[in-house]
Amino acid sequence: MDKGEQQFEMVAKAFVDHYYLLFDTNRVELSSLYNQTSMLSFEGQKIQGAEEIGMKLSQLPFDQCRHAISTIDCQPSPLAGGILVFVSGNLQLPGEEHHLKFSQMFQLIPTQQGSFFVQNDIFRLNYG
Amino acid sequence: MDKGEQQFEMVAKAFVDHYYLLFDTNRVELSSLYNQTSMLSFEGQKIQGAEEIGMKLSQLPFDQCRHAISTIDCQPSPLAGGILVFVSGNLQLPGEEHHLKFSQMFQLIPTQQGSFFVQNDIFRLNYG
Repeated sequence: MDKGEQQFEMVAKAFVDHYYLLFDTNRVELSSLYNQTSMLSFEGQKIQGAEEIGMKLSQLPFDQCRHAISTIDCQPSPLAGGILVFVSGNLQLPGEEHHLKFSQMFQLIPTQQGSFFVQNDIFRLNYG
Repeated sequence: MDKGEQQFEMVAKAFVDHYYLLFDTNRVELSSLYNQTSMLSFEGQKIQGAEEIGMKLSQLPFDQCRHAISTIDCQPSPLAGGILVFVSGNLQLPGEEHHLKFSQMFQLIPTQQGSFFVQNDIFRLNYG
């Protein structure tokens, strides 16, 4: 693995850790990871813009949840200078014995400040 | 849904139909959908380049398979002028009673000839 590849794998891993920790402990802060052009497809519903995405995520019909990550794959998104991140895992909801399996992909785009924001986010539960 | 959105949804749907039909009936032709910069992550293994990806896909340890698609989500990939496609479904192998659930994402990038090629491809089985 060359240095560039190590670097974007570190960014992807750090993003995944940060995203799901925020989701599970302080979901209202998630909107700070998106901007006005960001798109979320959540179980087929399309939402655009950081504020709207933040509202959608904070209004999901459960207060607490816990994500356990199974796999993280990432690839550079060359023309955009971004990173594609593909995650699979389990989601546990309060009072539910069974875990829900999910898959989710993100496209992270670099900002002028040297950070990244989420341009694209597609989430699906994997019904068994 | 505006006209641009309708158009890239049609491209995504046509691509998905074409890709899995080729996979299930003429897998050796899949390499024509990629180019030299294309990347495939297949169950965590990274492969780059149309020829190498074609070899990997044609050497998978089964001769025949059948994909059944459950969901297709797509979003524009604005900076690259491309389309992100996220697929979930079931894969049936010969002699296997149970289906394997999978998730797969593609980034399609427009060519100068007015077509698209697969820049990014990430495939994961969703173990139950």
